[in-house]
Amino acid sequence: MSQLIIVGAGLIGCSFAAGARAAGLFSEIHALEPDVSAATRACELGHVDGTVTEIPASAAVLLACPSHAVVGWLNKLADHKGPVIDVASVKGALLQQLAATGDLAPTGYVPCHPIAGRETSGPDAAAATLFLDKLVIVTPTAATHAEQLALVKSWWRALGARVEEMDADEHDRVYASTSHLPHLLAFAYLLGVDPEHLHHSGGGFRDFSRIGASDPDMWSAIFDLNSEALLLAVEDFRGHLDEFVDAIAAQDSNRLHELIAQARVRRLGLGDLT
Amino acid sequence: MSQLIIVGAGLIGCSFAAGARAAGLFSEIHALEPDVSAATRACELGHVDGTVTEIPASAAVLLACPSHAVVGWLNKLADHKGPVIDVASVKGALLQQLAATGDLAPTGYVPCHPIAGRETSGPDAAAATLFLDKLVIVTPTAATHAEQLALVKSWWRALGARVEEMDADEHDRVYASTSHLPHLLAFAYLLGVDPEHLHHSGGGFRDFSRIGASDPDMWSAIFDLNSEALLLAVEDFRGHLDEFVDAIAAQDSNRLHELIAQARVRRLGLGDLT
Repeated sequence: MSQLIIVGAGLIGCSFAAGARAAGLFSEIHALEPDVSAATRACELGHVDGTVTEIPASAAVLLACPSHAVVGWLNKLADHKGPVIDVASVKGALLQQLAATGDLAPTGYVPCHPIAGRETSGPDAAAATLFLDKLVIVTPTAATHAEQLALVKSWWRALGARVEEMDADEHDRVYASTSHLPHLLAFAYLLGVDPEHLHHSGGGFRDFSRIGASDPDMWSAIFDLNSEALLLAVEDFRGHLDEFVDAIAAQDSNRLHELIAQARVRRLGLGDLT
Repeated sequence: MSQLIIVGAGLIGCSFAAGARAAGLFSEIHALEPDVSAATRACELGHVDGTVTEIPASAAVLLACPSHAVVGWLNKLADHKGPVIDVASVKGALLQQLAATGDLAPTGYVPCHPIAGRETSGPDAAAATLFLDKLVIVTPTAATHAEQLALVKSWWRALGARVEEMDADEHDRVYASTSHLPHLLAFAYLLGVDPEHLHHSGGGFRDFSRIGASDPDMWSAIFDLNSEALLLAVEDFRGHLDEFVDAIAAQDSNRLHELIAQARVRRLGLGDLT
């Protein structure tokens, strides 16, 4: 049992802290958070025991800062002896950035991505159960130590998550398609909606556009970092959109029916419709 | 108090029947439904008292059939004396189709559109409370009788709905943007998702793509009928998508942040994030 430092007292950092506390994983938990109101709130809510301004040697570290700040922290922690994980939604592109800095990272670094976002953020949105039954992707590299990997997996499992290993570049392609593209489409869609028409929206609109309320800091960083895979996913999407536009313009109801039926079957494969 | 005939014993028809029964609006309610299993189920569940194969003179009629069948029914019912409503998601284009048939429609016709869809369908998905606190758009024309309009509004209000009058063409533009386009984007998006990646999807994906499981019969008819307004909405969307793609390709994080923040504010205006 050692000390945990969460770098960034937001939704993910505080939820990990709260879950780790409930599971008794660490002797004490502190936050390193420049935003005083977030830091204070994290303490008030009992997610952390207090705050720090420097990371103690050998503490376990959770980098729950925006994606674009992860590599800077890894460089800064290059001599750190304890385990270090990040929770960025981009993995391959992040590891490429890291390689560009000479792979300057702590020996205990294990890249992680918990699939447990929300459109709300901050310490007040945090919950010890956020990772319960959620998937956490870990993308170990040749430099990842086996015992650190096993330790980090055991943390996520203690918080109720399922852990899956993936290649980092494959991770970025898959999440460009299943997460980053839907966010992009929801954002672009919302820019075209007249605010005066919002009261005409039904439940479909609400569900479809909910991710469009996500945090701009987080998502501009993700789009920037995973630009290559995301732009490929957009091109693929445009092709499918064109198929629909062609069928609509040609008043080809049969073709429209066929396309919609294909899409429907794909979504039904996932379940969870109600 | 008179008899109600629902033409089409699906989600909307059966929910209206169940709600009207709970509110005591009609002395008896029957379904005209060619699909024997749906008709039987609507009876078993008590949504309707029985089935008919012809519409009795002076009965109230709810046309809850697919959009593309509404005009045919209005033509067929041209001499009908009772009130007739439809529930199609397209109104202006439907009235244009009707005009092309010489405006052959019953004098008691009032065009309606309840904003109360679901991705599930059929009598089993129906509920008397489906329209509770929901918006119902009515688009009266010069031919709509004031007393029929008032009667129909009183029905929807008895089912708990809020009623709003709109111009039919304006309705089609507004719903192309707030309903038909999101469905189109969800369908097109799903065509590009590898089924093997579905288990990587998080809550955002689930919400965003839920409308992609909607009924192909209903939606191919809506896209076909409202093609003009929908294609304009798609063009507008493509412009916003291009703004994002340009910012991503240029690695312009500030611009990305600005675009996402704009989208976010629009969605926050609607609330209902949790």
